[in-house]
Amino acid sequence: MIHVYVTIILGIIGLIIVFWLRNWVLKQSPGTGRMIDAYSWIKSGARAFLKREFTTITYFIIAIIIALSLLAFNNIIAWQIPVGFLVGALSSLFMAWLGMETATDANVRTTQAARTDPRKALLIAVRGGAVTGLSLMAIALVGIGILYLIFGDPALIVGYGFGASLAALFAQLGGGIYTKSADIGADLVGKVEAELEEDDPRNAAVIADLVGDNVGDCAGRASDLFESFSDNIITMMIVGAFLASIIVPPSEVIYLVELALVLQAMGLVASIIGIFFIGGQDPVKAIYRGFFLTGLILVIGFYIIIELMIPRDILATLSDPTFGFRLWITTMLGMIGSLLTAIIVWYYTGPKNKPVREIASLAKGGPAIDILAGIYWGMESIFPEAIVVAAITIASFYVAAGEFNIFGLSGIKGLFGIATATLGLQTMAGIIQTSDTFGPIVDNADGIATLSGISSEVGTSLEKLDSVGNMTKALTKAYGMASALLTSLSILFALIADYINIALEKGIIPAPEGKITFDYILKIANIHMLIPELLGGLILGVAVPYLFTSWAISGAVRGAFEMVREVRRQFRENPAILKGEALPDYGRAVDISTKYALTEMISPTTLGLFMPILLGTLFDVWVLIAYLIGLKISSALLAVFQFNAGGQLDNAKKLIEIAGRKGTDEHKAAVVGDTFGDPLKDTSGPSLHILIKLSNIFSITMIPYFIWLTINNNLALRLEAAVIIIIVWVILLFIAKRFRPKIELEEAKE
Amino acid sequence: MIHVYVTIILGIIGLIIVFWLRNWVLKQSPGTGRMIDAYSWIKSGARAFLKREFTTITYFIIAIIIALSLLAFNNIIAWQIPVGFLVGALSSLFMAWLGMETATDANVRTTQAARTDPRKALLIAVRGGAVTGLSLMAIALVGIGILYLIFGDPALIVGYGFGASLAALFAQLGGGIYTKSADIGADLVGKVEAELEEDDPRNAAVIADLVGDNVGDCAGRASDLFESFSDNIITMMIVGAFLASIIVPPSEVIYLVELALVLQAMGLVASIIGIFFIGGQDPVKAIYRGFFLTGLILVIGFYIIIELMIPRDILATLSDPTFGFRLWITTMLGMIGSLLTAIIVWYYTGPKNKPVREIASLAKGGPAIDILAGIYWGMESIFPEAIVVAAITIASFYVAAGEFNIFGLSGIKGLFGIATATLGLQTMAGIIQTSDTFGPIVDNADGIATLSGISSEVGTSLEKLDSVGNMTKALTKAYGMASALLTSLSILFALIADYINIALEKGIIPAPEGKITFDYILKIANIHMLIPELLGGLILGVAVPYLFTSWAISGAVRGAFEMVREVRRQFRENPAILKGEALPDYGRAVDISTKYALTEMISPTTLGLFMPILLGTLFDVWVLIAYLIGLKISSALLAVFQFNAGGQLDNAKKLIEIAGRKGTDEHKAAVVGDTFGDPLKDTSGPSLHILIKLSNIFSITMIPYFIWLTINNNLALRLEAAVIIIIVWVILLFIAKRFRPKIELEEAKE
Repeated sequence: MIHVYVTIILGIIGLIIVFWLRNWVLKQSPGTGRMIDAYSWIKSGARAFLKREFTTITYFIIAIIIALSLLAFNNIIAWQIPVGFLVGALSSLFMAWLGMETATDANVRTTQAARTDPRKALLIAVRGGAVTGLSLMAIALVGIGILYLIFGDPALIVGYGFGASLAALFAQLGGGIYTKSADIGADLVGKVEAELEEDDPRNAAVIADLVGDNVGDCAGRASDLFESFSDNIITMMIVGAFLASIIVPPSEVIYLVELALVLQAMGLVASIIGIFFIGGQDPVKAIYRGFFLTGLILVIGFYIIIELMIPRDILATLSDPTFGFRLWITTMLGMIGSLLTAIIVWYYTGPKNKPVREIASLAKGGPAIDILAGIYWGMESIFPEAIVVAAITIASFYVAAGEFNIFGLSGIKGLFGIATATLGLQTMAGIIQTSDTFGPIVDNADGIATLSGISSEVGTSLEKLDSVGNMTKALTKAYGMASALLTSLSILFALIADYINIALEKGIIPAPEGKITFDYILKIANIHMLIPELLGGLILGVAVPYLFTSWAISGAVRGAFEMVREVRRQFRENPAILKGEALPDYGRAVDISTKYALTEMISPTTLGLFMPILLGTLFDVWVLIAYLIGLKISSALLAVFQFNAGGQLDNAKKLIEIAGRKGTDEHKAAVVGDTFGDPLKDTSGPSLHILIKLSNIFSITMIPYFIWLTINNNLALRLEAAVIIIIVWVILLFIAKRFRPKIELEEAKE
Repeated sequence: MIHVYVTIILGIIGLIIVFWLRNWVLKQSPGTGRMIDAYSWIKSGARAFLKREFTTITYFIIAIIIALSLLAFNNIIAWQIPVGFLVGALSSLFMAWLGMETATDANVRTTQAARTDPRKALLIAVRGGAVTGLSLMAIALVGIGILYLIFGDPALIVGYGFGASLAALFAQLGGGIYTKSADIGADLVGKVEAELEEDDPRNAAVIADLVGDNVGDCAGRASDLFESFSDNIITMMIVGAFLASIIVPPSEVIYLVELALVLQAMGLVASIIGIFFIGGQDPVKAIYRGFFLTGLILVIGFYIIIELMIPRDILATLSDPTFGFRLWITTMLGMIGSLLTAIIVWYYTGPKNKPVREIASLAKGGPAIDILAGIYWGMESIFPEAIVVAAITIASFYVAAGEFNIFGLSGIKGLFGIATATLGLQTMAGIIQTSDTFGPIVDNADGIATLSGISSEVGTSLEKLDSVGNMTKALTKAYGMASALLTSLSILFALIADYINIALEKGIIPAPEGKITFDYILKIANIHMLIPELLGGLILGVAVPYLFTSWAISGAVRGAFEMVREVRRQFRENPAILKGEALPDYGRAVDISTKYALTEMISPTTLGLFMPILLGTLFDVWVLIAYLIGLKISSALLAVFQFNAGGQLDNAKKLIEIAGRKGTDEHKAAVVGDTFGDPLKDTSGPSLHILIKLSNIFSITMIPYFIWLTINNNLALRLEAAVIIIIVWVILLFIAKRFRPKIELEEAKE
C-alpha cells in the first residue's frame, strides 16, 4: 500500500505545481483595450457554451447513475460502480473546464508578451498548456489512488473510467462539432468568397471560430487525454491483478497491481521536470528539449522502478529471472511504437514530403482532384501504421512471454506485456497534452492580435510559435493514434480477465486443472471466427465506426452549412460590414455553432453505449468481444485516415500560401480541400478514439450484468431486456433528432 | 456424371442463343454519316485500348504460369492448376473483349432505332446486353463442366477461378482508371469551366469518355461478373465435396458436388426466358418483367432441383428429412439478402429520398459541404448493409444446421447453407449483367446522338432509356455488393475444407475420432482472435482495402489531372474549338487515359497476390485466414460506402439539373461532388470486390504450397521464401512506378 500513498502524494504535489503555474500565468499582463475586448468575447463565448454543454451532459450522467444504481440495488453490479462513475465523469468535466479556462487566460497574455518579449510568450503558452497537461495526470493519479484505497479491488474502479470516457466523448464531440461548423463557415465564405484573411474581424464567424479552438481543441482534448490516461491505469491494474493471482504468491500480488500507478507517478515527475526545462531562443529546440528530457528520465526511471518493484522472489517463483527486464523492454516497445507513428505522420503530412507536395500540385485541377488526392494519400497512410501496430503487438507479446510456446503461463505474461507496452506509451501524456494545448493558445493569441489590430507590433514571433504549434499538434495526433490502438487492446484483456474472474467465482465456466494457462483462456474465450454470430459481431464492429463518423461529421457539416448562409446573409444585408464600418453580429454565429454542437453530439455517443449492451444482452459476452475487436481495428485505422487526410489537405493549402499564390484558383481549391478535411481531423477522428475506449470500459463495467444474464439463462429474459434497451435507444435518438435544427430539402421533380 | 453433361449441353445451347442474339444485333442498321464516324472513333479507341491492356496482362499471365509450373514440376502443386489458370484467364479476357465488342456494336444501332422506333431501341440495347449476360454464364458452365470431367476433383479446378479473378481485376482496374480519368477530365473542364453540355463534341475528352464507358463498364464488369460466377460454382463444389464426404455414403457424394453446376444451369435457363420476355412500351415495366420472371422461375426451379437431386437415402442417412427443404430456404435467404441490399441502395441513392435531397440542398454551401454530405450519407449506408449481411450469414447457417447445438454435424451443414445462400444470389447473374451492360449501351447511344447532332430527332426516347439504365445500374451494384460479401464467406469455407482435406492426407493434423464434426473443424481451424499473430493478420486485412483504394483511385485522379490540363490547353491554344469551327484532338485525350490505365492498374493488383502469399509463407495458413476475414469485411463495407457515396453525389447533381438550375454555383458544386465520387464508385469500388475473391481463390490455389512449408517446417526456409517474394514484389512495384507518368511536385518553400 505504500506505493499507493506515494502515488497520491506525488499527485498532490503535481496539483500544487499546477496551482502555482496557473497563478503565474494569471499574474502576467493581459494587455489593454481591444485586446481585452477580443479576449472577453472569446472567454464569455467559451464559458457560455461549456455551461450549456455541461447541462446537457449532466442529464445523461444522472440517467446513467440511476440505471447503474438500479442494477446495484438488485445486486447485479457492485455499489462502487455508480460512485466511481460519478467521480470519473465529474473529474473529466472538470478537466475540460480547466483546459478551456487556462487556454483562454493564457492566449491574451501570450499576445501581450509577444509585443515585447517573444521568449516570454513561449513561456506563457507552454505553462498555460502545462496546467492542463500536468493536472490531467495528477487528478487521475489522486482519484484512482484514493478509490483503490477505499474499494480495494481494481475491477471496482472501472466505473471511474466509464464516467471519464463518457464525459470525454461528449466533450470532444460537442467541442469538435462546435469548432468545425464555425471554422468551415468562416473559411468558405471569408477566405474563398470574400477573400478575407484568417481571423479578419469583418467575418461574422470569427469569434465562433476562436471560441471553437478553446472548446474543441482545449476542453475536448483535455478530457480525451484524461480518460485515456485513467482507462489505461485501471485496465493495467486489472490485468496485473489477474496475472499476479496466477503467477505470484498471494502476498506479493499487489506489486503487479500497483505497478501501473507507480510507473505513471514516475511519468508525472518526468513531465514536470521536462516542462520546466522548456525555454530558450529557438522555440522548436525548446520544445524538443522538454520532450527529450522527459523521455530520457522515463527510460531510466522505468528500469529502476521495475527492478525495485518486482521482488527477486517473484522472479524466482516464476523461474524466470529476466521477466522484469523483458517488461522494461515492452515499455520501450510502446515508446518506439509512438516514435514510428510520429515518423509516419511526419512523412504523410509534412509540407516538405511528397504527399503534401503532390496534393498541392493537384490543386491546380480544382477542388475535386485536390480532395481526392487527400483521400488517396490519407488511405495509403493507414497501411504502414497498421504494420507498426501489428508488429508492436506481436513483439511485446512474445518479448514478455519469453518463448514461442505460449500455451502455458508464458502466454499470460505475453498479455501483460501488451499492457505494459501501452503504459510505456501513456506516460508521456502530460508533456504531450502540454504541447497540444500550447497550439490553440498560440493560435488564439495570433487571432487576438489580428482582431485587435496589433499584428504589425507582434510581428513574426507569434507566427513562429504557431508553426511550432502545428508541429506539436501533428505529434499529439500520432501519439493519440498509437495510444488508442494499444490501449484498446489491453482493455480487451482486462475485459476477458475480469470475465474469467467473475465467471469462475460464480461457477459458470469449468475451473482450470491447476493454474490458469493461456491455453485455458483460449478455450474459455470462445472468440473463434468461424462461428457465425462471432463473425456477425466482427462485421458490425467494423461497420459502426463508419456510422459514428457519419453522425459526427453530419453535425459539423450541417452546422457549417447554416454558418455559411448566415455569414453570407450578414455581408449581403449590411454592406457596411465588409467596408469595416460596422461590426458583424458575432452572437448569431456563436448561436449556430452552439445549437448544432448540443443536439448533434448525442446520437453518435449513444452508439458507444447501446451497441455493446445490446449485443451483450442478445448474445453473449464473446459476440460482444468480437464486436469490440472489429470496432477497435476499424476505428483506429479510420481515425488514422481521417487525421492524415485532414492534415495533408491543411498543409497543402499552407504550401500554396507560402509560395505566395493566395487568392488564385488553385489556392481556393486548396482551401475547399482544407475545409473538407476539417471535420474529419478535428471532429470525428479524435472522437473515434474515445468511442473505442468508452465501448470497452463500459463493457467491463457491465460484465456482472452479462454474467447474471448467463446464469438466469433464458431467451425470454434476453429478448425482454433487449427490447427495453432498443426502446430507450430509439427514444433517445428521436429526442436528439427532434431538437436538431432542420435543413430544407431539395424538391425531387420528375 | 449425367448432371455434368446436361450442364455442358445447356451451356452450349446458351452459347448458340448468344450467337443468334449477336447476329440479330449486327443485322440492325447502324445509321449513316456522322453517326458511323462517332461509332468508329469509339470502337477503334476501345479496341486499341483493350489490345494494349491485354498485352500487359499477358505478361503477368505468362509469369504466373511459369511460377505455377515450377511449383507443379517440383510436385508442390498439381499440374492441373497452371492449366486451369490459363483457361480461366483466357476466358475472362474473352468475356471482357466480347462485352466491349457487343456494347460498341449495339450502341450506334440503338441510336439509329431510337430515331424511328423507341421500342426497338430498347430491344437492341437489351439484347446487346444479353450477349454479355448470357455468355458469361454459358462460358463458365461449359468451362468448369469440362474441366471437372477431365480433372475429377473440384479442388483442382481452383486454377480456373484464380485465372478468371486475376484477369478480371486487371480488366476492371484498367477499365476503371481509363473511364474515370476521362470522365472527370471531361466534366471538370467541359461542364464546370467551359459550361458545355455532356458529350459536347468540342470537349477534347469526350471520345475518351465514351470509350471509357465501354472498356470500364462493359469490358471490366463482364469479366468481373464472370469471375464471381465461376468462383462461386467452384467453391460451392469444394464445400459440397467436403460436406458430402462426411455426411453421405461415398456413392452419393457427387450429388452435393454437382448441385452447384445444375442450379446454375437452371439459372442460365431462367435468365434466357426472362430476357426474351423483356419488351413493351414502358421500359421500366419491361425490365422489371424480365427480372420478376427470372426470379420466379428460379424460386420454383430450385425447389424442384433440390428435391430431385438430393436422394431420399441421403436424407435418411442424415436422419434429417428436411435438410433439402432447408437448403432451398437458404437459397431464398440469399435472394432476400440481395433484395434488402437493393432497398438500402434505393433508399440511400434514390433521388426522391432524404439523403440525395439533403445533399442537393447542401450543395448551396459549396463543393466541400456537398462532398462531406456525400461522405456522411455514404458512411451511414454501411451500417444497415452490415446488419443485412450479418443476419443472412447467421440465418442461413442456422437454417441449414437445423438446430442451435452446432458442434456436431449440424455445424457443417450450416457452412454448406452459407454456400447455398450465396449461390441463390448468384443465379441471377445473367439477367443482372444484361441490364448492367444495357446501361452503358444506352448511355453511349445518347452520346452518339449528341456527337452526330441528331439529338432533336431522337427526342426523349433515349433519355427515358438512360434513366432506366441508371436504375438498373444501382440494382447491379447492390447485387454485386451482396454477392461479394457472401461469396467471399463461402470461399473461406472452401479454403478451410481444402486445407483439412490435404492436411489429413499428409498427416500433419490429428485425424478426427469418428466423423468430422464442426467442433473438430473449430479445433483445427485455429483462428482465435487472442493469438497476437492472428490479431495482426486481422489488422492488416482491415488495412489493405484502404491501401488498395488509395492506389486504385490515385491512378484515376492523376490521369484526370493530366486530362484537365490537356483539355484546358486545347481550348486555350486553339480558340476555334470552342466556337465549333475546329475539332479538338481527341487522340491526345485517349492517349492520356490509356497511359494511366496501363501503368496504374499494376500496383493495386499485386496486393491481391503478394499479401496472401507473403503471410502464408511467413506465418501459417491461419494467420492468412485471419487476414482474409479482415480483408473481406473491410473491403465489402468500404465498397458499399464508395458505391453509395458516389451514387448519391451523382444523383444530387441530377436533381439540381432537373430542377433547371444548370450553370448555377450550386450546380457547379454538385458537379464537383459528382466527379469526386466518380473514381470511388467506378474504379476502386467494383475492384475491391474482385480483390476479395482474387485473394481468397489464390490462397486456395496455394494451399498445397503452404502445407509443403508446414511439412518442411524450418524458419530458414520460410524466411528465404519470404525474402524472394518480397524482392519480386518490390521489383514489380518499382517497374510499375518507373513507367508511371510523373507529376511535377509543388516546391516546398520555408
